[in-house]
Amino acid sequence: GPSKEYENYRRRAFRDTQEMWFFARSKLDGLIKDKSKVEQKVPEILSELEAREQSVLIDLEKLKENDGFDSWREAEARDLSALVQARLHFLQNPDNCGEARKLVCNLNKGCGYGCQIHHAIYCFLVAYGTERTLILKSKGWRYNKKGFQDVFLPMSETCTDPEGSSKSGWPGKEATQVVELPIVDSVNPRPPYLPPAVPADLVERIERLHGDPIVWWVSQFLKYMLRPQPHLKEMLDTTVNNFNFEHPIVGIHIRRTDKVGTEAAFHPVEEYMKYVEEWFRKEELTHPDVKRRVYVASDDPKVLGECRKKYPDIEFLGDQNVAKSAAVSSRYSDSSLRGVIQDIHMLSITDYLVCTFSSQVCRIAYEIMQQNHVDASNRFKSLDDIWYYGGQDEHQQEAVLGHHQVHHGEIELEVGDVLGVAGNHWDGFNKGRNHRTNRVGLYPEYKTKEKLRIVEFPTYEKVKVSNL
Amino acid sequence: GPSKEYENYRRRAFRDTQEMWFFARSKLDGLIKDKSKVEQKVPEILSELEAREQSVLIDLEKLKENDGFDSWREAEARDLSALVQARLHFLQNPDNCGEARKLVCNLNKGCGYGCQIHHAIYCFLVAYGTERTLILKSKGWRYNKKGFQDVFLPMSETCTDPEGSSKSGWPGKEATQVVELPIVDSVNPRPPYLPPAVPADLVERIERLHGDPIVWWVSQFLKYMLRPQPHLKEMLDTTVNNFNFEHPIVGIHIRRTDKVGTEAAFHPVEEYMKYVEEWFRKEELTHPDVKRRVYVASDDPKVLGECRKKYPDIEFLGDQNVAKSAAVSSRYSDSSLRGVIQDIHMLSITDYLVCTFSSQVCRIAYEIMQQNHVDASNRFKSLDDIWYYGGQDEHQQEAVLGHHQVHHGEIELEVGDVLGVAGNHWDGFNKGRNHRTNRVGLYPEYKTKEKLRIVEFPTYEKVKVSNL
Ligand SMILES: Nc1nc2c(ncn2[C@@H]2O[C@H](COP(=O)(O)OP(=O)(O)O)[C@@H](O)[C@H]2O)c(=O)[nH]1
Ligand SMILES: Nc1nc2c(ncn2[C@@H]2O[C@H](COP(=O)(O)OP(=O)(O)O)[C@@H](O)[C@H]2O)c(=O)[nH]1
Repeated sequence: GPSKEYENYRRRAFRDTQEMWFFARSKLDGLIKDKSKVEQKVPEILSELEAREQSVLIDLEKLKENDGFDSWREAEARDLSALVQARLHFLQNPDNCGEARKLVCNLNKGCGYGCQIHHAIYCFLVAYGTERTLILKSKGWRYNKKGFQDVFLPMSETCTDPEGSSKSGWPGKEATQVVELPIVDSVNPRPPYLPPAVPADLVERIERLHGDPIVWWVSQFLKYMLRPQPHLKEMLDTTVNNFNFEHPIVGIHIRRTDKVGTEAAFHPVEEYMKYVEEWFRKEELTHPDVKRRVYVASDDPKVLGECRKKYPDIEFLGDQNVAKSAAVSSRYSDSSLRGVIQDIHMLSITDYLVCTFSSQVCRIAYEIMQQNHVDASNRFKSLDDIWYYGGQDEHQQEAVLGHHQVHHGEIELEVGDVLGVAGNHWDGFNKGRNHRTNRVGLYPEYKTKEKLRIVEFPTYEKVKVSNL
Repeated sequence: GPSKEYENYRRRAFRDTQEMWFFARSKLDGLIKDKSKVEQKVPEILSELEAREQSVLIDLEKLKENDGFDSWREAEARDLSALVQARLHFLQNPDNCGEARKLVCNLNKGCGYGCQIHHAIYCFLVAYGTERTLILKSKGWRYNKKGFQDVFLPMSETCTDPEGSSKSGWPGKEATQVVELPIVDSVNPRPPYLPPAVPADLVERIERLHGDPIVWWVSQFLKYMLRPQPHLKEMLDTTVNNFNFEHPIVGIHIRRTDKVGTEAAFHPVEEYMKYVEEWFRKEELTHPDVKRRVYVASDDPKVLGECRKKYPDIEFLGDQNVAKSAAVSSRYSDSSLRGVIQDIHMLSITDYLVCTFSSQVCRIAYEIMQQNHVDASNRFKSLDDIWYYGGQDEHQQEAVLGHHQVHHGEIELEVGDVLGVAGNHWDGFNKGRNHRTNRVGLYPEYKTKEKLRIVEFPTYEKVKVSNL
């Protein structure tokens, strides 16, 4: 049977949800009855409503902790990751490199570090899907002329030679030994293995384990690809120590310089801090004396000082020199590379991320964060986009409740309708296209569930992992 | 491990809680920015917020259905009830009535049926606590001169004689054979077995099983006491058939006549129906075509017609003649008794109760309802009081989160503070007294948990039930 604690928190989540509604209904009814001082009353209502919402979230967290399945979840997370890592190791270390089928990919896409790594991961996914060993070319890498393996372990211990008996561009033939893969922006035909494709043979396990299967899947490829060289590992460990890094801590990534006004909007420090403070208020419900700590990553060196000045009671960790080296003028350099790797690492080991998912730096940090938890899919607040993978196939949801248009701009849903998701407005509504009606507009996220793109990948039957 | 569905609904509850908050925050921020048309906007916000709250409740219901524990819960509910019933049967059927220790109690308290039954149950609880066979006197019962066993099975098959070798008023001595128990209003000393006392030897099991342990405990005594005579059982079954009683159905109990203005306030039909319609809107989220059915019980014969006239789309079940017989002038009669038993029965087999818990009729219906479900503690909406037992000891809660006074009339909480509960204002706040500070005022229910009154009862070790 269930534990007493589990039953307790289950009932408490129900009660607190109702109590939140009783509260909201009563306060809002009050606003109609007495329309004076709305600007005073509403912030008070919001503040109480926030705490009530957070207490339901805490109930749900405690419910999970007490449902008796956590040790299963941890074991399964370990086992499933071990299986995927073993498959990647197998793929990357063929017995006979001279005869191995290869996929060649050049790291040096004309963009930033996050973008380049995501590009390489796209290649790695296609390599996995086509059972070709990934050969990652990185000589003359803009971030480090010596190449990728100057900081990360090489993608293979046995097979890094891009040559072979036959060669072709994508897609080549089954028998072609070496296929060169262009960047996703121009690949043709598009491989079926692009995100959000998740492998059919593992989807049941991934879905049971993780709140966002495609993020987990991508994170496993990053786990393999970004294995640090010993000196990098040492540098990262030293940094963590020097910062006196302690939990709980929130990470914020404030992307500025070349991004602002071109690919993303400007977001003031206050906008990030609003969610940082909300997160700490939730912590304080159960730990009233918590110290507020924030790790700041940015490509703008002024940001750290601004944070410290505006929020003197919060402890900010960060390195102005790292931000300086991220300036566009010095960005493509060894020290800038160390800086961005450090920032991403630090962000990934925080408890919660506040950032703009329009930036690949923060998306990577979020992906890597998944490696440290069974399911960290809720540990973020993005000020703009939902998570996505550059060049991905359509992200879809399916309606589980019907919806009639209430406000202008909304679209209708029938149960079972498929939606192509464009984004979340963070106001309870998503934007997307209803495949049935072909209408684009807003619909309530809570009336949907995720519709995974399940694709047949090779199943690597030869790879066995002992689950001990 | 957990089922995929369980994990899904657990995550969905979390997501939908967040989405509800995103929605509320955005709409309320909007109210500050544009203060026009508050009386138009707020009802719209409320309506959407209600659906969002309901969807979280549905997530939690589905979570429970899929957590894999439901068959355990059902078996445990059966077993635990069987154990208590066996103990009551043992207590009521001593081998030798001539020597059995007895507690004598007169059903004919000067009040209505619900009140009298609760009085008899109070006696039964004390009988259980003192290991005395309950002798229920009911000759000349105001509702049926022939007495209790004209409608219900007698409390004992072997022992109904109120005489004995020694006799005394409450509390008597351990060795006194016959003790007479006065009504709770004047009992002295107060027995430790009064609600909300739950028995120490069973509390772990009851608490794990049920959201309101004292209600479950009381319901078990009612289950034994109100075993219908065959002709009553037949009458009730026929009634259910004749009404074409079908689920889902909500029960409303509208208490009027002598109660209004003396012990309770007047509540118009609309106030009950507000919650009936809310309940059906929740049903409609997952079953859009649900037929709205309501069973109406009242002591005012006009109510049924008023309901039908004002809500022509709802199907109302009820019997005007039953309500007529409940008039104060004809109340204490055979046919009125059949009427109130019928109404209570019908209310108890609905899916949800809307009523005033100030009335013992509805409290009894709610108590009996527990016998039909593992845990029906959430299946009610009371327009006034929370559930209580007349003459009970203090109902207590314990603070699990701290609270600082926000509004006038609130009291402070520190974690661990004990609160004597006076009532729920159904606006997110309870009223009560903080034992530490001795202050009386409002505090948020969600910052508390129930503090059970755990009392050592006899453990009836001789009674064994085979759990097959
Ligand atoms: N050290 C550091 N570098 C950053 C930061 N933000 C941006 N950069 C630099 O700017 C580049 C941005 O390119 P990219 O990684 O593709 O991310 P995006 O342009 O933000 O989507 C990074 O790779 C870094 O070189 C930061 O917070 N810290
Ligand atoms: N048939 C019927 N009788 C009722 C109803 N409401 C009240 N009565 C009568 O009024 C009495 C009220 O006394 P009691 O049961 O102590 O409940 P209370 O006064 O409402 O707390 C009942 O026992 C019935 O005889 C009703 O809905 N249906």
